[in-house]
Amino acid sequence: MTHIPFATNFVEPAGSPIRELFPYLSRPGMISLAGGYPSPSLFDTEGLQEAAARALSGPGALQYGATEGLPALREALALLCGARGITCSPADLIVTTGSQQAFDLLLRIFIAPGDTVCVETPAYPAAIQALRLADAQILSAPVDEQGLDVEALAERLQRLPVAQRPKLLYTVPSFSNPCGTLLPAARREALVRLALEYGFLIVEDDPYGELAFTDERPASLYAVGQRIAAEANPVLYLSSLSKTVAPGLRIGWMIAPADVLRRCVVAKQTMDLCTSPLAQQIAAEYLGAGRYPAGVERACAEYKKRMLALSSGLRAGLGSNIAFVQPQGGMFIWARVAVPVDAKRLFEAAVQCGVLYVPGAAFYPENPDLGTLRLSYAAPDVEQIREGVARLTKAFDQASTS
Amino acid sequence: MTHIPFATNFVEPAGSPIRELFPYLSRPGMISLAGGYPSPSLFDTEGLQEAAARALSGPGALQYGATEGLPALREALALLCGARGITCSPADLIVTTGSQQAFDLLLRIFIAPGDTVCVETPAYPAAIQALRLADAQILSAPVDEQGLDVEALAERLQRLPVAQRPKLLYTVPSFSNPCGTLLPAARREALVRLALEYGFLIVEDDPYGELAFTDERPASLYAVGQRIAAEANPVLYLSSLSKTVAPGLRIGWMIAPADVLRRCVVAKQTMDLCTSPLAQQIAAEYLGAGRYPAGVERACAEYKKRMLALSSGLRAGLGSNIAFVQPQGGMFIWARVAVPVDAKRLFEAAVQCGVLYVPGAAFYPENPDLGTLRLSYAAPDVEQIREGVARLTKAFDQASTS
Repeated sequence: MTHIPFATNFVEPAGSPIRELFPYLSRPGMISLAGGYPSPSLFDTEGLQEAAARALSGPGALQYGATEGLPALREALALLCGARGITCSPADLIVTTGSQQAFDLLLRIFIAPGDTVCVETPAYPAAIQALRLADAQILSAPVDEQGLDVEALAERLQRLPVAQRPKLLYTVPSFSNPCGTLLPAARREALVRLALEYGFLIVEDDPYGELAFTDERPASLYAVGQRIAAEANPVLYLSSLSKTVAPGLRIGWMIAPADVLRRCVVAKQTMDLCTSPLAQQIAAEYLGAGRYPAGVERACAEYKKRMLALSSGLRAGLGSNIAFVQPQGGMFIWARVAVPVDAKRLFEAAVQCGVLYVPGAAFYPENPDLGTLRLSYAAPDVEQIREGVARLTKAFDQASTS
Repeated sequence: MTHIPFATNFVEPAGSPIRELFPYLSRPGMISLAGGYPSPSLFDTEGLQEAAARALSGPGALQYGATEGLPALREALALLCGARGITCSPADLIVTTGSQQAFDLLLRIFIAPGDTVCVETPAYPAAIQALRLADAQILSAPVDEQGLDVEALAERLQRLPVAQRPKLLYTVPSFSNPCGTLLPAARREALVRLALEYGFLIVEDDPYGELAFTDERPASLYAVGQRIAAEANPVLYLSSLSKTVAPGLRIGWMIAPADVLRRCVVAKQTMDLCTSPLAQQIAAEYLGAGRYPAGVERACAEYKKRMLALSSGLRAGLGSNIAFVQPQGGMFIWARVAVPVDAKRLFEAAVQCGVLYVPGAAFYPENPDLGTLRLSYAAPDVEQIREGVARLTKAFDQASTS
């Protein structure tokens, strides 16, 4: 115990609501539909072993590196962005320790206590947590089955006093966490125009965009911003290798204007000096070896199979007791209980029956919809998903009748 | 260019004064006595290749890991601390993305704008920069040839209004950056007692402690704190594998009381979720293989040889024009120009002559002593050091006579 007073936000800090589920995970036989972990069966261990051996044959992987990232990796990531329809050069991006760090950097350089940040709600809990610790004023933007409801946001912004207008808006437009929704092209353009009209920056977080189950792949918000506004593009683009290669690398990146990147680099110098050059060099070698596209293709096929198992299982087992939109990509099904069941009781029954999910409250900065839950199909295999759904069905029965 | 206003501290942020020297480094033939980079010739590439191969043979290195760090690495680091005379269990420490991140975490959880942090001066520039960005009030603690002048600090604290007393004190007691000094045992005890008396925490940053050239190895401040105050130990211990294994891993760690660690974990969740599990697993395998002690021994021998080359070279070439204390370990010689020479002119002449050092101003939060310079003997070999000193001597002549 220390006697030195903590800063206000750390006197009684709430930890991650998802990480609080960890103790349940270690129960024998538990099936988890909770975490956002990619499937270990999809890790290209052989490719990464080869990449590591190559990375360690030169000296660069072991020394300090430039805060901006290793030139070889920045080049490889710029090429990867090109394949996603984003025109950028290595100088337009910096490497970050996961895209989580990129968001944290943006909050540091832009947000003073009380500044407003708009966030699609429900939202990624670590983004909400970062906003809380930054003392940001959180403005919730509503979503529907197609993602961020841009019209509703426009109305909300119109009513807002100028001093409360957001500086940033955080969104995961492609296969969002937790909703799994894909923002249609028309809404993307409308959102970019809204940012230009109201003078905020869009933080487009895109870890899942390539994990698509259909051919519907609207251009990224960043690309839309380039097209509409060119140099005045209001979109900052974040992405990560965590969902498509391996989270263990902790390699993310951010595309932003030079003045933003320069300040992020200053902040990053005091945070971790640079992202592990060893992990960076391994990532660069891996991307350079050309194994990435096949890995993504494998992931899409496998996740689609698992998503279909979970969707059809839920429909068969729970029928009209639960409502959800079948996702077109990503890792998550966002469901709403359609009958009166106490959320706490349902979760306890599920744990009892040996299946875990994330209660939806974790994804709301305020006024949670307690009837919601996030189910991930990424980590369990089809067999486990079937058994998980059976257990969830049993839990539903128990919670409804008890 | 973005039109969104930056947070106050990022409107015109100063970058790292050391990193500003980078452009000079790429000049052909330049000899650098500037950086704090370890010698690449000391990297145990073979040992790290083996460690990487083993790390990638299991699944743990590629998945997300606990924010606290991988259990295997926490165990290995607790053992390493044991060898340094610090009694701790794996639960007493967390892994950080370099020890730089540990300091940043401590500032986040303890320091509100205006809170006072005491820092030995001259000090590590990235620590000063982190304090500036955290809006801390910086209280300079004077140093002499033996490191932090605890008596002078005590006098300063006595005169200080209670409201301005520091919450934290940052020090590198063993082979400090930039001074290379080793704080004697008596001063260590006095400093710990001062912390207990005035109610501040000591942040003991110890990246260089094992790089000793003599047998004088006083107990760490942390161990002194354990002995004097047991559970009320006012010392937080930071260290890193950057100087003894390889900076490219970005593996640091922090020992602190449970309530401090818990809050650092919450802050780290929003910063980078976890330190690269791949780098962590490689570090754990490397430490587990038992190659660490021999690597440190090699480093001590090599750095001592280089230090002696630089010391004797400076004495022979510059004589009474320069004053310095020969270091007993670490990577740096801190020197003071003993004759009137314009600092800017000297630096320009040195660059002209093809040798680089860090002008001392970089190490002061305020009122820099412009007659100081930091010379590192870690990266250049003995031959380069000799040539570097010859060039510095020439630069001195040019700057004094012009």
